[in-house]
Amino acid sequence: MLSRNFIKNMVNCPLDSIPSEVLHEAKRSFLNWLGVGVGAHRHSSVAKAINAARVLKSAPQATILGTSIKTDLQFASLINGMSSHVFDFDDTFLDTVLHPSAPVFPALLAWSEHKGISGQNFLQAFVIGVEAEQRIAKVICPSHYNRGWHVTGTVGAFGAAAALGRLMSLSEEQMGYAIGLASTQPTGLREMFGTMAKPFHSGKAAANGLLAVLLAREGFTSSLQALEAKRGFCSVLAEEQDYTILSQPWGSDWQLMYNAYKPFACGVVTHPAIDGAIQLAARGVKADEIEAINLEVHPLVLELTGKTEPMDQLQAKFSVYHCVAAAFLYGKAGEGQFSEEIVHSADVIKLRGKVTARVNDRLAEDQVILQAQIYGREPMEVVVEHALGSPKKPLSDRNLEEKFEDLTAPYLSKKTRQQIISNAWNLERSSDLIEIIQLCIS
Amino acid sequence: MLSRNFIKNMVNCPLDSIPSEVLHEAKRSFLNWLGVGVGAHRHSSVAKAINAARVLKSAPQATILGTSIKTDLQFASLINGMSSHVFDFDDTFLDTVLHPSAPVFPALLAWSEHKGISGQNFLQAFVIGVEAEQRIAKVICPSHYNRGWHVTGTVGAFGAAAALGRLMSLSEEQMGYAIGLASTQPTGLREMFGTMAKPFHSGKAAANGLLAVLLAREGFTSSLQALEAKRGFCSVLAEEQDYTILSQPWGSDWQLMYNAYKPFACGVVTHPAIDGAIQLAARGVKADEIEAINLEVHPLVLELTGKTEPMDQLQAKFSVYHCVAAAFLYGKAGEGQFSEEIVHSADVIKLRGKVTARVNDRLAEDQVILQAQIYGREPMEVVVEHALGSPKKPLSDRNLEEKFEDLTAPYLSKKTRQQIISNAWNLERSSDLIEIIQLCIS
Repeated sequence: MLSRNFIKNMVNCPLDSIPSEVLHEAKRSFLNWLGVGVGAHRHSSVAKAINAARVLKSAPQATILGTSIKTDLQFASLINGMSSHVFDFDDTFLDTVLHPSAPVFPALLAWSEHKGISGQNFLQAFVIGVEAEQRIAKVICPSHYNRGWHVTGTVGAFGAAAALGRLMSLSEEQMGYAIGLASTQPTGLREMFGTMAKPFHSGKAAANGLLAVLLAREGFTSSLQALEAKRGFCSVLAEEQDYTILSQPWGSDWQLMYNAYKPFACGVVTHPAIDGAIQLAARGVKADEIEAINLEVHPLVLELTGKTEPMDQLQAKFSVYHCVAAAFLYGKAGEGQFSEEIVHSADVIKLRGKVTARVNDRLAEDQVILQAQIYGREPMEVVVEHALGSPKKPLSDRNLEEKFEDLTAPYLSKKTRQQIISNAWNLERSSDLIEIIQLCIS
Repeated sequence: MLSRNFIKNMVNCPLDSIPSEVLHEAKRSFLNWLGVGVGAHRHSSVAKAINAARVLKSAPQATILGTSIKTDLQFASLINGMSSHVFDFDDTFLDTVLHPSAPVFPALLAWSEHKGISGQNFLQAFVIGVEAEQRIAKVICPSHYNRGWHVTGTVGAFGAAAALGRLMSLSEEQMGYAIGLASTQPTGLREMFGTMAKPFHSGKAAANGLLAVLLAREGFTSSLQALEAKRGFCSVLAEEQDYTILSQPWGSDWQLMYNAYKPFACGVVTHPAIDGAIQLAARGVKADEIEAINLEVHPLVLELTGKTEPMDQLQAKFSVYHCVAAAFLYGKAGEGQFSEEIVHSADVIKLRGKVTARVNDRLAEDQVILQAQIYGREPMEVVVEHALGSPKKPLSDRNLEEKFEDLTAPYLSKKTRQQIISNAWNLERSSDLIEIIQLCIS
């Protein structure tokens, strides 16, 4: 019954009733997703997956982000779902740590490109998909994640299936089969973190969601109690379940409105310190004036990111000292600020050596106190109450534009980047997704 | 370390050392698998999956069993892995309830057809794949199955990956990645039993194993401790693990030698009674001479298959009364003896009404005592010590030929069936698999 009511909402909730601010959030999610995907399209994992598609002589149905290469819908879903999670810089529901976009947009975009779906229908379907996936994630998190599952890979397939299923106007029975087929293909052990298999999870979730819908549309049967049954998804993949949200009505409190976007290309614990460093620089302080930067931080910061002498890109992301130095010098902390070149640059190393940090137990995770000692001047203090990107201080549309620009600048001209941004903000008026996909070709 | 040693064996154990009786068992498995696959190729789930492949314009690389339709390697793996599990009449390792062939042969056959692999290499790779999958199944069963996982879907991907990886001569590192990628794509909730999603599991396992190998061959990374790590496959998907078998050497006690084949197209608990009924008929007793057939059975028989008046195919499989009546009248209990026509035939209904059964606690699961009351004659008794198909009384090669013939008779001529059987027994001398695949086209 639980699955049945949930699926009824998925199939029947009126799309016209989605408020404009929710559609706007869908566009924010899309712009953010597009940036991280195009930004990572030359990652070696992408090339490897394209080679696998070539072995299977995959048909040219949909575009691999950032390239003019086309594969079939399944590989386009897989690969674009991978690339957009490679940097770990995509969006997040903070309460379940689900990354909602990476499994949903790729399947939707592939189908939309293939079938000439309008921007409006694309955005509406995304809202439905995210609603389904985050509600299921809420039923089983945190025990699901704690058991060792990467929730984006496991639950992502529901999002892709719900979004695509709605776009294809599946009946309740067909949608039920699709959700059942998505449930029985969970992807993602946390043991894979730190390898290419981590972003593979979100891509495979997209591809599995697509396959679930293609089969369900044909009447390929599965259990219609896939979520709540004794040997169903929620019981088998989690220790604790709270099914309340499955029976709550749709349309008054859209999950998508809680989506969060990272401003900085590293773990969230360092974000308050980065925010503080950027604010310090914005006050006109120069690097060579600085005698010391002393941080008071939440305990997790030193536990997770206490590396003082990072040697490569990955280590730099786990060094709050590097984060602060690079953010101060460049006024941002995008993927570029973690390049090997910058990690080993003399200016960064010099400033990094002047940064100290100590734990202040009274601080929340999104707070920092930064005090700068400046030669021949009074010390300056920056208190960050809520780091940029935290729920209390979400990224503005302008911030998201800057993030997109920053991620795609190595591959796209300024003019093209601005065209894409403008196209994204007007997506509900586009007759299809073709133009924006083509603009992203580097 | 566990994964590492295990993978070392997978990659390096000498193929020449596989004894001829193990290769012969591989041929027995193949003939059995081919029969159930060709026998089910017109099942509606197969047509539905072919339609999904068509939406993706899947390239014609490998043949769908029983047809002249070709799809890409991934869909051929998926679909042939499905059809061969549709009847639930494929092979089984009784101690883990793993069906070893359904996820392994489809991926191997697709690749072998595509690349012109020899029969000898095909059979050797199968032995390696089954060794890997059954060892992993032993680590986590029975707690894995009890938790709600369909072990054939979850562990099957390892079998497909190991077999294909060995066929492609992956390095240890590549094989490690392949096993990691297989581990993070487990398919199969037991909640799906009774729907098309159940056979989908073995097919998806084959397809996922193939994808894992295609990516790993490109150097696509994953965890090299995927099996034993804290958040790895065995811990996340089971409550209890016994890793002993992972470190045991390969080559002295091949898992494949414990493979079992069902003689009858229904649950194993009814097999002793069916065996007894066939023996009774073989003694020359005619149906109209029978006053009553009284069975003494293991307690599970009535618990699971006590339905006295079955109305359709599925119910008939859960009726020991139908099983005995049909087996007596037809001398066998193949898929055909559960058709609606036979379930509703007057002869079967009449004889079914004369069958009684009572529990005898002293009987083992593979035993039955059958006593027949015969008009005007002494009663006759058949005592089945070990039912046909049980480990103590395995199917003979001739039994397997009859099973193949029975399953494929609706689609293939007698001559073709015999050619296939002869071809299968000589597979290690075939230069490729093309001929046998083409002979199966109905």
